[in-house]
Amino acid sequence: MRLEKLGEFGFIARVAELVGEPEGAVVEGIGDDAAVLKTSGDCYVLVTTDAFVEGRHFRREWLSAEQIGMRAACAALSDIAAMGGEARAVLLSVGLPPGEDAAFGEQLVRGLHDVARSWDASLAGGDTFATPAGVWLDVVVVGEVDRPWLRSTARPDDILLVSGTLGGAAAAFHLLESGRAANADALPAALRSRFTRPTPQLALAQALRQLPEPPAAIDISDGLVQDAGHIAERSAVALTIEAPCLPVSPACAEAAVQPDADPVPWALTGGEEYELLLALPPAYADQAVAEAQKVGVMLTRIGSVSKGLGVTVLASDGSPMELPQGGWDHFAVQ
Amino acid sequence: MRLEKLGEFGFIARVAELVGEPEGAVVEGIGDDAAVLKTSGDCYVLVTTDAFVEGRHFRREWLSAEQIGMRAACAALSDIAAMGGEARAVLLSVGLPPGEDAAFGEQLVRGLHDVARSWDASLAGGDTFATPAGVWLDVVVVGEVDRPWLRSTARPDDILLVSGTLGGAAAAFHLLESGRAANADALPAALRSRFTRPTPQLALAQALRQLPEPPAAIDISDGLVQDAGHIAERSAVALTIEAPCLPVSPACAEAAVQPDADPVPWALTGGEEYELLLALPPAYADQAVAEAQKVGVMLTRIGSVSKGLGVTVLASDGSPMELPQGGWDHFAVQ
Repeated sequence: MRLEKLGEFGFIARVAELVGEPEGAVVEGIGDDAAVLKTSGDCYVLVTTDAFVEGRHFRREWLSAEQIGMRAACAALSDIAAMGGEARAVLLSVGLPPGEDAAFGEQLVRGLHDVARSWDASLAGGDTFATPAGVWLDVVVVGEVDRPWLRSTARPDDILLVSGTLGGAAAAFHLLESGRAANADALPAALRSRFTRPTPQLALAQALRQLPEPPAAIDISDGLVQDAGHIAERSAVALTIEAPCLPVSPACAEAAVQPDADPVPWALTGGEEYELLLALPPAYADQAVAEAQKVGVMLTRIGSVSKGLGVTVLASDGSPMELPQGGWDHFAVQ
Repeated sequence: MRLEKLGEFGFIARVAELVGEPEGAVVEGIGDDAAVLKTSGDCYVLVTTDAFVEGRHFRREWLSAEQIGMRAACAALSDIAAMGGEARAVLLSVGLPPGEDAAFGEQLVRGLHDVARSWDASLAGGDTFATPAGVWLDVVVVGEVDRPWLRSTARPDDILLVSGTLGGAAAAFHLLESGRAANADALPAALRSRFTRPTPQLALAQALRQLPEPPAAIDISDGLVQDAGHIAERSAVALTIEAPCLPVSPACAEAAVQPDADPVPWALTGGEEYELLLALPPAYADQAVAEAQKVGVMLTRIGSVSKGLGVTVLASDGSPMELPQGGWDHFAVQ
């Protein structure tokens, strides 16, 4: 079967079947934000690897070398946040095309390293090679956690919380795609930092260690609805999202006004937000919101968990919404 | 400066300068076979990331999907062996071209996973994406070690030992390149397994834990002389290799006869051998050889360490040899 037909998630499902249940040091394998390993220490070791390919994950017309590195680091660090962990080190495989200027590579590494260091994780190694064409990155982050946050632990009656605001990344993408911003530097300030240096929610992960038990969690990289679907599937529960509750980014709403677009679908399906979606018992909700506030992160209640399967989004009148698109599939025909 | 001019190692040196001294959890960063991290456990965590790009690191005409996966796993695991460690888990970023059959991707993963499992490390996660063209892999291996083997601890009067035999990978490459073998399956048996599933020297690493102190070590991926140069540079010593002592692979010698070539340069500069080069005090040499023998690995004394800098290769008459090439540089014009 051709990959476009099987799709990214179909392919991953086949790989997961082939690999079977986690064994040896692997506690949680394929199917979460990062792998969870039990090594000799008291904590679990977390490892994630994230690819960033020119033309697929980023465009050089939109981002400087430093911004490409920053964005790649943020995205990979976000996977450690989604497991409730702390980052320890970053490794980088970097492929550059023939004839590239070395300064481009150095600036890219500088951007990545600056972001990593700001989270106490420095660049610890990697690999370099020449590509046939285009820039290719693979960013590895190693972290640690005492109680990993999994996608598989949501239970009926849990509430859904999301960090920060949504829709900003999609609005930035829309402005760039439509040519209304020539590159990231030309974006409105609030969208610019969101796009070039999104904040991995590592501080939030640390703040929520105070909770009596770890939440179910995922980072929003493929779009809220699709990522909610991963929690629903892995936890075998139904997730209901109330669209009027979504913390739509003000900058997103503003960008949407101009092309006469509704910001809510952006907040529901826009990828690369790097906010966290959490499911936890209602008894801990106030504490979670208060702990998050201490580190300057807003948590908003956007829905709930119930028995069943799948994700439903309710409009303001309580009726289920039709969604404009399912999210992102890397093997789909673009 | 263009990358071809700066070269792979020039670029890595600039990145290392930019990153500075290891800090935080990073004990040994850029410049060894794997990063060494101090986490909460008693052991060190090792992490390595290795890229494999079609047309650069492998050719699809020569290898089946399964063989590509096996070879990539072996190469990445070899970095953990070179640090004296045990493998714990493998992660894979895999990029496949549009229109590829899903079975190709699955067979590749199967090959990688089979090799990883044979070393008690299973596939724990990764990333998938579509490439503009060609197959791209990045293999991450996480390991553990109590006493890491570094490149920087060779001292004057140490002896140099190499595991296994050398030249087999170069001979296989020569037979394929010259068209005398259409693909890996058409290689002579001894070269075939060497090329498709080289043995990462993980068993040797475990056997040599018995030594009173860890050796300096590197795996031979860029060619013996070039990799010896990395030990010389990081340890600030001179390495002398005696060419007549090299354990030239019999299959390599046989392959060399036909095109009337001398196998010694292949053994000196051929890459992707995945044997280990070790430097250790002469007092431990016999013990090292005996421990290696217990796990079926031959260790051969091929030279010594002295004060000074760089690598010298001595011919059978004791005169320094001129080397046909320096080794492999990924940014060099091919």
